[in-house]
Amino acid sequence: MQRPSGRQPDALRTVTLERGYTRHAEGSVLVSFGGTRVICTASVEPGVPRFLRGTGQGWVTAEYGMLPRSTGSRMAREASRGRQGGRTLEIQRLIGRSLRAALDMKKLGENTITVDCDVIQADGGTRTASVTGACVALVDALNGLQRSKALLSDPLKNMVAAVSVGVYQGVPVLDLDYDEDSRAETDMNVVMSDAGGFIEVQGTAEGALFGREALNAMIDLATDGIQELFALQRAALAGG
Amino acid sequence: MQRPSGRQPDALRTVTLERGYTRHAEGSVLVSFGGTRVICTASVEPGVPRFLRGTGQGWVTAEYGMLPRSTGSRMAREASRGRQGGRTLEIQRLIGRSLRAALDMKKLGENTITVDCDVIQADGGTRTASVTGACVALVDALNGLQRSKALLSDPLKNMVAAVSVGVYQGVPVLDLDYDEDSRAETDMNVVMSDAGGFIEVQGTAEGALFGREALNAMIDLATDGIQELFALQRAALAGG
Amino acid sequence: MQRPSGRQPDALRTVTLERGYTRHAEGSVLVSFGGTRVICTASVEPGVPRFLRGTGQGWVTAEYGMLPRSTGSRMAREASRGRQGGRTLEIQRLIGRSLRAALDMKKLGENTITVDCDVIQADGGTRTASVTGACVALVDALNGLQRSKALLSDPLKNMVAAVSVGVYQGVPVLDLDYDEDSRAETDMNVVMSDAGGFIEVQGTAEGALFGREALNAMIDLATDGIQELFALQRAALAGG
Amino acid sequence: MQRPSGRQPDALRTVTLERGYTRHAEGSVLVSFGGTRVICTASVEPGVPRFLRGTGQGWVTAEYGMLPRSTGSRMAREASRGRQGGRTLEIQRLIGRSLRAALDMKKLGENTITVDCDVIQADGGTRTASVTGACVALVDALNGLQRSKALLSDPLKNMVAAVSVGVYQGVPVLDLDYDEDSRAETDMNVVMSDAGGFIEVQGTAEGALFGREALNAMIDLATDGIQELFALQRAALAGG
Amino acid sequence: MQRPSGRQPDALRTVTLERGYTRHAEGSVLVSFGGTRVICTASVEPGVPRFLRGTGQGWVTAEYGMLPRSTGSRMAREASRGRQGGRTLEIQRLIGRSLRAALDMKKLGENTITVDCDVIQADGGTRTASVTGACVALVDALNGLQRSKALLSDPLKNMVAAVSVGVYQGVPVLDLDYDEDSRAETDMNVVMSDAGGFIEVQGTAEGALFGREALNAMIDLATDGIQELFALQRAALAGG
Amino acid sequence: MQRPSGRQPDALRTVTLERGYTRHAEGSVLVSFGGTRVICTASVEPGVPRFLRGTGQGWVTAEYGMLPRSTGSRMAREASRGRQGGRTLEIQRLIGRSLRAALDMKKLGENTITVDCDVIQADGGTRTASVTGACVALVDALNGLQRSKALLSDPLKNMVAAVSVGVYQGVPVLDLDYDEDSRAETDMNVVMSDAGGFIEVQGTAEGALFGREALNAMIDLATDGIQELFALQRAALAGG
Repeated sequence: MQRPSGRQPDALRTVTLERGYTRHAEGSVLVSFGGTRVICTASVEPGVPRFLRGTGQGWVTAEYGMLPRSTGSRMAREASRGRQGGRTLEIQRLIGRSLRAALDMKKLGENTITVDCDVIQADGGTRTASVTGACVALVDALNGLQRSKALLSDPLKNMVAAVSVGVYQGVPVLDLDYDEDSRAETDMNVVMSDAGGFIEVQGTAEGALFGREALNAMIDLATDGIQELFALQRAALAGG
Repeated sequence: MQRPSGRQPDALRTVTLERGYTRHAEGSVLVSFGGTRVICTASVEPGVPRFLRGTGQGWVTAEYGMLPRSTGSRMAREASRGRQGGRTLEIQRLIGRSLRAALDMKKLGENTITVDCDVIQADGGTRTASVTGACVALVDALNGLQRSKALLSDPLKNMVAAVSVGVYQGVPVLDLDYDEDSRAETDMNVVMSDAGGFIEVQGTAEGALFGREALNAMIDLATDGIQELFALQRAALAGG
Repeated sequence: MQRPSGRQPDALRTVTLERGYTRHAEGSVLVSFGGTRVICTASVEPGVPRFLRGTGQGWVTAEYGMLPRSTGSRMAREASRGRQGGRTLEIQRLIGRSLRAALDMKKLGENTITVDCDVIQADGGTRTASVTGACVALVDALNGLQRSKALLSDPLKNMVAAVSVGVYQGVPVLDLDYDEDSRAETDMNVVMSDAGGFIEVQGTAEGALFGREALNAMIDLATDGIQELFALQRAALAGG
Repeated sequence: MQRPSGRQPDALRTVTLERGYTRHAEGSVLVSFGGTRVICTASVEPGVPRFLRGTGQGWVTAEYGMLPRSTGSRMAREASRGRQGGRTLEIQRLIGRSLRAALDMKKLGENTITVDCDVIQADGGTRTASVTGACVALVDALNGLQRSKALLSDPLKNMVAAVSVGVYQGVPVLDLDYDEDSRAETDMNVVMSDAGGFIEVQGTAEGALFGREALNAMIDLATDGIQELFALQRAALAGG
Repeated sequence: MQRPSGRQPDALRTVTLERGYTRHAEGSVLVSFGGTRVICTASVEPGVPRFLRGTGQGWVTAEYGMLPRSTGSRMAREASRGRQGGRTLEIQRLIGRSLRAALDMKKLGENTITVDCDVIQADGGTRTASVTGACVALVDALNGLQRSKALLSDPLKNMVAAVSVGVYQGVPVLDLDYDEDSRAETDMNVVMSDAGGFIEVQGTAEGALFGREALNAMIDLATDGIQELFALQRAALAGG
Repeated sequence: MQRPSGRQPDALRTVTLERGYTRHAEGSVLVSFGGTRVICTASVEPGVPRFLRGTGQGWVTAEYGMLPRSTGSRMAREASRGRQGGRTLEIQRLIGRSLRAALDMKKLGENTITVDCDVIQADGGTRTASVTGACVALVDALNGLQRSKALLSDPLKNMVAAVSVGVYQGVPVLDLDYDEDSRAETDMNVVMSDAGGFIEVQGTAEGALFGREALNAMIDLATDGIQELFALQRAALAGG
């Protein structure tokens, strides 16, 4: 088996995390997983949604979008179609849940952080790149709140990162690009915490079903790959 | 650990599959997983979506809804709010993918089967009950197409069924009801084929993260529980 | 003239009212008029719409929907089309007005009761079955409010019930099923109170116009038929 | 009993029908029932909706709107709210059904006539004024089609006209204005054909219920009032 | 060069301003620029949008619409299409900005005036006719507020009026009708104050580009034409 | 008068045009006017909108969007609000008209080019930066079509570029940034062709009205500034 990119089955693509990518947001990161590039911004606003008012707890939510020509053929703009599609809503719910697993909402106080993940170029794995980049943007926003004394303690419990795994031509592989993703038999997205433990495991058979052995192999690959992502996140945050 | 329902950790709720529940649909099943009740209807229409025209292949899709007062407090009706929520879209995409894994689309020919899953009473696990009931409705519709000679061979490759598993008070448990689901640390939905193999595995940490051991234990529980569901599906189909 | 069902011109279909059909709602009734089956739930919430705040009066409103395959051929789901159609809005306005004629809004206090009428199987007369079943669900909800001392006196002024009448092959007939309805020359829906008097009279020529004589005959038939419905409502409420 | 306008119980308001009110439409009428003024335009387009293609039959449909400040206090513009309300849809369905009862669709051929009724000033009875004016606009459009030889025979079977009746302070009255309408116990709209016979009868109790006697009296009043409207329509059409 | 209407290049069409056109609005004007006829109503409501609350300032906003058959061929009704088009939004933003330039918002106090401009017949220049008529309706509303002592001083700073200019067959012309507008090389809308000065200048090349000389000539024509409009506005207001 | 940026009144900000910014689009440019950064992509698709089918002519259209946190405070995402705002529609209509003035639609054949302008960071002048960058992306797409022999001759008639001008503290200034724009008395956007001539002139008084002299001074500034932009476009295109 030869991966289209020539990578080893357990090799990530080149991953970069560029902090301070745009100027207005409290946290702003351009994350690249190979040809996949996503702008992740974290915006802080005082106040929380109605169901949390008066609880003293904060909230983190996410929105996701793709520029119309981030993909090989142009997609209709969701704003002009008048609704976000099911895939978009599903992805932004996943990102939001993942980021909420990173924070102690009591320490955030009644503030809301909205993380926008906008894909400017897509080559597979946009949702896992989004989670990985969004967590760094979130940390930048939290650090700013602490520097300005808006928060007295750090809400961050742990970092979160995510990667895709799949079975391609019968072989479990890490971090699928679009060429692999569109032909893979199985596709799985895994989100983990650097404190250990899974946040999300979402596997889907795309044709052939997958057995217990393949499931285990994919989980193993993802677990190792995400450790590399944690190291890259730490390096990016140290570099600022 | 005592489950609210008094069930053993590996015990399903009482599951029933009532075929022919309504009169107009080609397949119509009322599925109950304990207090969760879902009407599943399979509707056959000639023709396929644009992206399949001329390929000779068929299509299966699903829609999901909840009656406004299927739940403890009334929810706004999605038709009057003017859009389906993210949870609804996510669930109907899951049901559709699961059912498509049951069929050989070439044998279905250029026909579309739409399976509607409408929850009339919710008590946890509505999406897994929907998949399990929808598959029986789908088989009834396929059988009707064969009886009327609209199809010459059976598109059914295998049955599909689904169940939820989770970690409740530290213990992996099968088929969570609402009381458990709302307090579980982890919630996982598993869809399998009776030919062996997984179709979907979707696990989410709801508070505490879950480790590899818990993941394995949940997969074990689900694998066994789904075998019971296959037996109930076969019995229901034999009873017609 | 032979009715497709073999019924006499002045004969209702078999009408049943099954209380407590689902578990969560304050009132829940499955009403059947022959093959027409509708789930009616009454949900109580404190508070009233803006235009009634501070008046001490309550409010009753209704929503109506049809499951996509409650009908002979599948209809598009209104939630996925993004709007409720004109027929749906017209019917739910009729149900709401009818139910408001049953209550003394002062005695209800500033509470809102929303009655959802969801058709799970359609065979003509869904709106009149809805009114008839909804009134029983409403009474169950009111009785619950009195038992729990949330209300000190009974807001119910009178029962309401409804039936369709029409002219089929030149003969006025009661309670049209779908076969008749789709071929009737005239279709009329009548809503009455058991205290005497009409709440709504809505007649539409579907081809041939109708004269004064036919109008009178239809009103006569409806008046008698609705008396039978009142008796069935009373029996159902006595049986709980 | 004294009507706010000083009219006798069986007196219409001053009704005028001004043909050729705007220049572009095939038929264009400004109808006034006292202070109620509605612009009715009939627009002819070749072709019919999908369900009639190939049948050789035509179609007539109606749309209804109110200018935001046609009423005592400004209403939100439906175009900016993004949806037509239930009342609007109900009224335009009524107008469309009424006008279709005027025509032989076979003679219209596969053409569609859309009649727009836009209320520029409202003082009660906008839907009945709309039906009455729309029929004259429709006739103008049909006459144009015949003059231009687009139609070889006249599709008009009969004129249609409509009026409201009600019970005000216990007395049946004809053609309610806003002052009466907002305080009437019962409100009924009646649409008739000048060939004899009812097209629509829609009565609603607005507080007190109405008995059989009141129903009969209102039908009598409407029947006589509509004869006057037919005479006014004929005079307007003769005047052109 | 011969204009289709036979007018001189610097001649306005016949412009009329009929005050008190409908009865409910605080100001109501039917403005005609030749065959273009627009109903302009000014509605006063206490309160201001959120961003102005507590500032002591008022607000003026505008909405614009066209009756479906105000044009040569019927346009779809925006209310039934579920959204206002880009042209509509662009025009109502222009009218709103123009009217706000007429008032001292401090003197208006925390009141909102909404001006609705509804085109009942279109023959080019609907937006400039709207601005010109709307300003008269606005003055009528302001005068009413002063007569009723709701306002103690006059918020009106200056009148505003607007006209279109263009280049037709190489010649700059004033106040284009539809025949000219649809064939003009350039179309420009100019809004001015009678205190001197421009409020809006919006010129668009429709085919051939326009040079500095043509730009200057159009501005000259508009400046003179608008003076005539101010005289007509004053005459109309004096005539009340 | 001192501009916030320290620039001379007739000085542009630093303008850069980075071609090939993303990989999938036929033309892709990141344009920066100082802190304003916009991704412009040109996408080519065979076929044209219905109103042009069979004419042999092509079409160019534009869409515009802002990332939610491209601005100082986060804006709601238009896709999740379910509609594009008036400002967005107005801007994308302006960009589309401007680009169509650059092409000979006959030479484009029945192809559609959609140019998406997505603002990733906003600091004033996003619409003029969009026009300027979009034209370069369009040229890249046209050159690709010619290289691949999909087009036999070059549809480009002339380049188009745009700049904003305004009156700030009484002085006409070129290329306003956000600090100036939000406090300017007048704001004008000018689009020109490098073949000479204006495509669009849109000036708006934001408080004080502007006289003829200021209008002339702004037009002069814009005319000179746009010549610099043409030089930068040519340099960027030469550099590829």
